[in-house]
Amino acid sequence: MHTELPSLDPDDWAAFRTLCHDLVDEALKAVEGVREMPVWQPMPDAVRSALREPAPRSAQGAERVGAEFLKRILPYANGNLHPRFFGWVHGAGTPVGALAEFLAASMNANVGGRDHGAVHVERQVIEWCKEIFGFPAEASGLLVSGTSMATLIGLTVARNVLAEGDVRDLGLLAEPRQLVCYASQQVHGSVAKALELLGIGRRGLRLVPVDAEHRLIVEELHNAIRLDRAEERRPFAVVGTAGTVNIGASDPLAELASLCRAESLWLHVDGAFGALSLLAPGRRGSLKGIEQADSLAFDFHKWLHVPYDAGCILVRRGGQHRASFAREQDYLAAADRGLAGGAPWFCDFGPELSRGFRALKVWFTIKTHGLDQLGQAIAANCDLAVRLAGLVGKEPCLELLAPVPLNIVCFRYRGEGLPEAVLDRINSDIVADLQEQGIAAPSTTRIGGRLAIRACICNHRTRARDLEILLEAVRTLGRQREAELSAVGQA
Amino acid sequence: MHTELPSLDPDDWAAFRTLCHDLVDEALKAVEGVREMPVWQPMPDAVRSALREPAPRSAQGAERVGAEFLKRILPYANGNLHPRFFGWVHGAGTPVGALAEFLAASMNANVGGRDHGAVHVERQVIEWCKEIFGFPAEASGLLVSGTSMATLIGLTVARNVLAEGDVRDLGLLAEPRQLVCYASQQVHGSVAKALELLGIGRRGLRLVPVDAEHRLIVEELHNAIRLDRAEERRPFAVVGTAGTVNIGASDPLAELASLCRAESLWLHVDGAFGALSLLAPGRRGSLKGIEQADSLAFDFHKWLHVPYDAGCILVRRGGQHRASFAREQDYLAAADRGLAGGAPWFCDFGPELSRGFRALKVWFTIKTHGLDQLGQAIAANCDLAVRLAGLVGKEPCLELLAPVPLNIVCFRYRGEGLPEAVLDRINSDIVADLQEQGIAAPSTTRIGGRLAIRACICNHRTRARDLEILLEAVRTLGRQREAELSAVGQA
Repeated sequence: MHTELPSLDPDDWAAFRTLCHDLVDEALKAVEGVREMPVWQPMPDAVRSALREPAPRSAQGAERVGAEFLKRILPYANGNLHPRFFGWVHGAGTPVGALAEFLAASMNANVGGRDHGAVHVERQVIEWCKEIFGFPAEASGLLVSGTSMATLIGLTVARNVLAEGDVRDLGLLAEPRQLVCYASQQVHGSVAKALELLGIGRRGLRLVPVDAEHRLIVEELHNAIRLDRAEERRPFAVVGTAGTVNIGASDPLAELASLCRAESLWLHVDGAFGALSLLAPGRRGSLKGIEQADSLAFDFHKWLHVPYDAGCILVRRGGQHRASFAREQDYLAAADRGLAGGAPWFCDFGPELSRGFRALKVWFTIKTHGLDQLGQAIAANCDLAVRLAGLVGKEPCLELLAPVPLNIVCFRYRGEGLPEAVLDRINSDIVADLQEQGIAAPSTTRIGGRLAIRACICNHRTRARDLEILLEAVRTLGRQREAELSAVGQA
Repeated sequence: MHTELPSLDPDDWAAFRTLCHDLVDEALKAVEGVREMPVWQPMPDAVRSALREPAPRSAQGAERVGAEFLKRILPYANGNLHPRFFGWVHGAGTPVGALAEFLAASMNANVGGRDHGAVHVERQVIEWCKEIFGFPAEASGLLVSGTSMATLIGLTVARNVLAEGDVRDLGLLAEPRQLVCYASQQVHGSVAKALELLGIGRRGLRLVPVDAEHRLIVEELHNAIRLDRAEERRPFAVVGTAGTVNIGASDPLAELASLCRAESLWLHVDGAFGALSLLAPGRRGSLKGIEQADSLAFDFHKWLHVPYDAGCILVRRGGQHRASFAREQDYLAAADRGLAGGAPWFCDFGPELSRGFRALKVWFTIKTHGLDQLGQAIAANCDLAVRLAGLVGKEPCLELLAPVPLNIVCFRYRGEGLPEAVLDRINSDIVADLQEQGIAAPSTTRIGGRLAIRACICNHRTRARDLEILLEAVRTLGRQREAELSAVGQA
């Protein structure tokens, strides 16, 4: 009776189940064997070409598409599952997270609102986060794609609460003064991006100097606020960082919280990866004050290894959060019973109306592993960073370029008497060589103007031996590059 | 050697594979059998309580967590997989989409940038979208969580291109005039939300009257633009809708495109679910002009049934798109080779730096089913809507409240000589009853002030018989409610 119309369900469910089992097995095999594979390999031109096709009109069938995935996509991964991926700040993923994604997608919930199971799972996850960070009962939260979006939401609430007039209605026309947000010189680029979106502009971001440990200097902040007030600008927010991207430093959050209270400013904490380091034994102290933030942004897809993407915003006073995003529309009217019950709806706490069931992979991850084990994995990464820094210090041809407060080691190869520009070039080549040879994948940054090899240890699979392999290769490649240069010089 | 440190990989891979197979089978069984289940059932209080627990410190293990998922979460779905879910605009999902989510999560790619397979898949998907909608080669695109985010991005580019001064740097301080964006009275709430975020404010949204078919009246738009210019406001954008949420109407996009060209305004099209209706045979004509949009926002998770969440923004001139979001940061410096190659990076086209591998489920869906079959499923939904409207028209106790240009039928139960307020109450009760009894899940809206039962047919599993079941139940419940009221009246 139903056959006359097209359905997108499998014709043969048993065959489809078998296909799922096979592909699940292949994908898990790739995770299980990741250590034996190159960290990264570029997608060859032939594969790129083969992947290209006009928009497919005809059905190719799941089996054929699955086979193409295994051949042309799976081998060319980002690299971040590998224990010697040290680039940027990428989580390593977990098999149980992938399983949760299948289950969430099979349910296909829209968690923008209404009354159904997925909503309760997200609420539970948010309650856990409030508990972890010591936020009050009236705090609200929302799962988002990551800290960029979380920071955008936090600063939206800050702007709407503190700018002149009803910003939601009138926009910034009602605000004659330049709004100013303060952050350290080491702040992440997502803050400037958020200010640009919000109509405040980069000009509204005041970068405050940091000390030798890359921590914001509170007195400099205080001076900057005074100056801006004197010059008729309107300070409204301070962004404190828990874990800078360059070296993993954290600002003195408790002092920032006191200053913000005294100055009636909003304290937003960008804790993208650093915030959850408080799960590691003995590390809670360095984030003291985080529990006083007005809003806190952080990621699950970094140091909790939840598959991409998954982040969170917490807002201290839930009423302010909701007042910045809630709207009424006829076709979205909430009801007091039935499927349209379940108020408040999550779409009233952020810009998105349709929302996937991200909460399930977070729920699975936290429950399966438990916060203690997740915290131990974080602690192990930090211990490895200290160890790596120690190894660097023992090598005459290597040089540590920054302190190691968390899990990031910035160092470089140094030849004898080579000018800075040449050293920059050598170290940048070393990093690209390491990646292209599939040995390891650190990234680069600049510390005090010098190009650094940046090793961020953010992977539950990384072991001490991986650090030795990294340094061995850096030494070898560095010497090669240096020899090449001196050969050119002599020629 | 590695055992001294915690890893989040399974201790026993074979056992974990078996667990995955079992849970995949259970989840697929729920999809396969969805027709025999209630459309929706509330989560009982006992289950809600059982779900609640303090943040788990100890590992519970994947097996136990999986069992809890099957017992406490899977049964309490959103309902949108069911063929008689008619609420809001929800896609129905597909098993192959869920499989793709497992595979994407197992790879755990961060598609914010760099050079790896997932990036090439997303580029391919965007090329397909440009081809589908007739966008030029220089157009750019980005996969996002949905149309709310896509519209935010489209209007950000519009604002940055057309407002006075360098908005990214100076914010809106450089713009002394009220920026004005035009849209029909039937526009989706995400447009106002975007304007609020962008610092333009709701005041900057001018709602233009619609005709009897709920289509924006272009002459009224023209008048509004003239008036705003005369009064020193600055028109900058028009939002055309392809598929209004209330009844599925589409604005005259070709006329809007001409007007926007003549007036130097940005044309953004909100095509959340309606845009992809051009895949249905014979429906391309009603969206004529969509290929001329400056930006186009639409969802894959609605009428392509890709699991939540997945939407897309296309921008006609890719350079303008990138100029609105690209930034440079030391630790994110792109390289000409190695893993940090692959420019331009997707993070330079939107607010997010970390981005999941959404593209894979879209790629799997389009290839597995092919655009022809996906278009036929859309056409079948529209045919069913016409059929439902016909059935409503034949029932004396039912009344059609709006035209049916696409896939949405707004109607109501009408008793004899009942006041409007009572009819509203009866119809709202009918909808909640339908949901609570698990028979069907339409939603409600208001059409011309009257509460309507709104049936949006957006499910590849829906068949003619489902419409009959819906109307049968509406009649029965309506009579019951009417009888209860008259009993109360006589008592």
